[in-house]
Amino acid sequence: MSLNADETVSGEISPALLVDAMFGFRKTAAIKAAIELDVFTAIGGSGGTAASLASATKASERGMRILCDYLVVGGFLTKTGDRYGLTPSSRVFLDRQSPAYLGSAIDFVAAPEMARLFLDDPSAYVRNGGSVGLANVSADNPVWVRFARGMGSFVASSAESLAAEVARWPTAPKRVLDIAAGHGLFGIEVAKAFPKAEIVAVDWRSVLELAEANARNAGVADRYRILPGSAFEVDWGSDYDLVLLPNFLHHFDIDTCVTLLQKIRASLSETGNVIAVEFIPNEDRVSPPFPAAFSFEMLACTPRGDAYTEKDLAEMARRAGFGGISTRPLPPSPSSLIFFKR
Amino acid sequence: MSLNADETVSGEISPALLVDAMFGFRKTAAIKAAIELDVFTAIGGSGGTAASLASATKASERGMRILCDYLVVGGFLTKTGDRYGLTPSSRVFLDRQSPAYLGSAIDFVAAPEMARLFLDDPSAYVRNGGSVGLANVSADNPVWVRFARGMGSFVASSAESLAAEVARWPTAPKRVLDIAAGHGLFGIEVAKAFPKAEIVAVDWRSVLELAEANARNAGVADRYRILPGSAFEVDWGSDYDLVLLPNFLHHFDIDTCVTLLQKIRASLSETGNVIAVEFIPNEDRVSPPFPAAFSFEMLACTPRGDAYTEKDLAEMARRAGFGGISTRPLPPSPSSLIFFKR
Repeated sequence: MSLNADETVSGEISPALLVDAMFGFRKTAAIKAAIELDVFTAIGGSGGTAASLASATKASERGMRILCDYLVVGGFLTKTGDRYGLTPSSRVFLDRQSPAYLGSAIDFVAAPEMARLFLDDPSAYVRNGGSVGLANVSADNPVWVRFARGMGSFVASSAESLAAEVARWPTAPKRVLDIAAGHGLFGIEVAKAFPKAEIVAVDWRSVLELAEANARNAGVADRYRILPGSAFEVDWGSDYDLVLLPNFLHHFDIDTCVTLLQKIRASLSETGNVIAVEFIPNEDRVSPPFPAAFSFEMLACTPRGDAYTEKDLAEMARRAGFGGISTRPLPPSPSSLIFFKR
Repeated sequence: MSLNADETVSGEISPALLVDAMFGFRKTAAIKAAIELDVFTAIGGSGGTAASLASATKASERGMRILCDYLVVGGFLTKTGDRYGLTPSSRVFLDRQSPAYLGSAIDFVAAPEMARLFLDDPSAYVRNGGSVGLANVSADNPVWVRFARGMGSFVASSAESLAAEVARWPTAPKRVLDIAAGHGLFGIEVAKAFPKAEIVAVDWRSVLELAEANARNAGVADRYRILPGSAFEVDWGSDYDLVLLPNFLHHFDIDTCVTLLQKIRASLSETGNVIAVEFIPNEDRVSPPFPAAFSFEMLACTPRGDAYTEKDLAEMARRAGFGGISTRPLPPSPSSLIFFKR
């Protein structure tokens, strides 16, 4: 039997996929170390040897040599003689100087809390159909700030696309509610697109400090109001022209989503609109890959969350009193916008 | 930016590889849950739905549906309507009924201890050039038995190949020493090939109980003697015709390997031979993939272990007083045999 992870797996019998999965967390560990030590930025345009990179990152030469070799095997670096260089993709997404830098996501995606949630006893959440997840983590735990900060880099372009979409509508929204705002980027992009819009951002207080800082950096702080608390409990008022619900429904079961959507619907102005952002798997639930796989993420991390299909979302909308939904994918991101029809 | 993990990554700029690595431990978690719940065996030849598999594995239908969909996305299962089936590779390597079943490796490869070792602070072992690893774990910790048990499924065919190799030699070995025997499979295969050979197996006592059980199952227990203790400290006697050193050198630095090889050399009979089993990367240290990547495994798990190149191994041999080495790959396994010349 073979353990060579580079074998072609399509069709032929090979344990390559299995070995890749069994050893999957080694890849996470290596990319986490490289991002934390900022190896990709140190390599930059001019490249480096294990010795020069060790010196630049204050790491041992031995550790740096082994890490970089592993990253070459994994396709993240090139090696010529003893000199490492960036691949085109690493240059775009892993060099901190790049505007498309995605490295900050690692702080949350591979946080020790997350690793334990997934790996300590994966049979348990499959058996139980969900987990307590991070629900026991208090609202002011730093993990939520890491989450908000890490996810910001992933959704920046989606947030811009959402604002561009709204900018095509005939009427400019003035009162905007951003639910589970996190990093705040969705509301902030809307504020940038509509100079008269006022944003109310709901989330945990510690996280909203990050959203406020982002709003200041974007020059919209004077129209940005934070409302700390749970979206299910806080009184956010009424008469909203636009309610944003980015990446939030998937944390809950359908009944809970319906309850939230009812509360949202009751707080809309006469011409108000709701836009959610979600990963929408096809009805087969096994495609496209990222949205379909996201369901497992929710199984491990939440009591009853899921990645919802268009049919699921339409059912939620109907039960909450909306006329229906329409969706629009946000390529190249795996997210979609969901518009709730009045 | 795209997060679609199915994109072609060769040449084109895409975060697909990065997302795959960042999320790597989700794959480990899913395959671990599926193996522990024995989902692949339950699917077997006739397939199953989430409901039937949940019932067969005593798991929730919701958890089973989400797990199986994730395994379809990952290429481990097929889905037709709501019915899951095995891929040809899953049938061979993950159905417990299959003689090539590899699932038992997960107990060690993805043990919580291992996950923490890799993921809690990966920058630390890169910075330090190694880790305390499991060295602080006492010799009777159950993790070693999980290790020995788990690795057995991976090396079964290599152990057979080693014994077949020795069977081609002109002289049959009588006194055989198996160092860090673990599951014992290498020594046991030699015992099976040479009905007059007596095997002395060195390892921790708890692990040797497994080796003894395997020797009984193979019908060679009457010629199988265990010698519990550290290979560096125990007095294993002399006059050995064959010393086996399977997957052990990579745990130590070159100096320590030399010390051990000197001790081994001193205990050989006049015509005695030494065979090690190792993953041997090329001198570029980034190919072939599995042996090259194995170096990172040792960085995370040991103080100064490494995957050694042929040049490294030749240096060790020379310093220990051997004439040199020759090697033979063991395809389709990523291992090689190393013969030490007298």
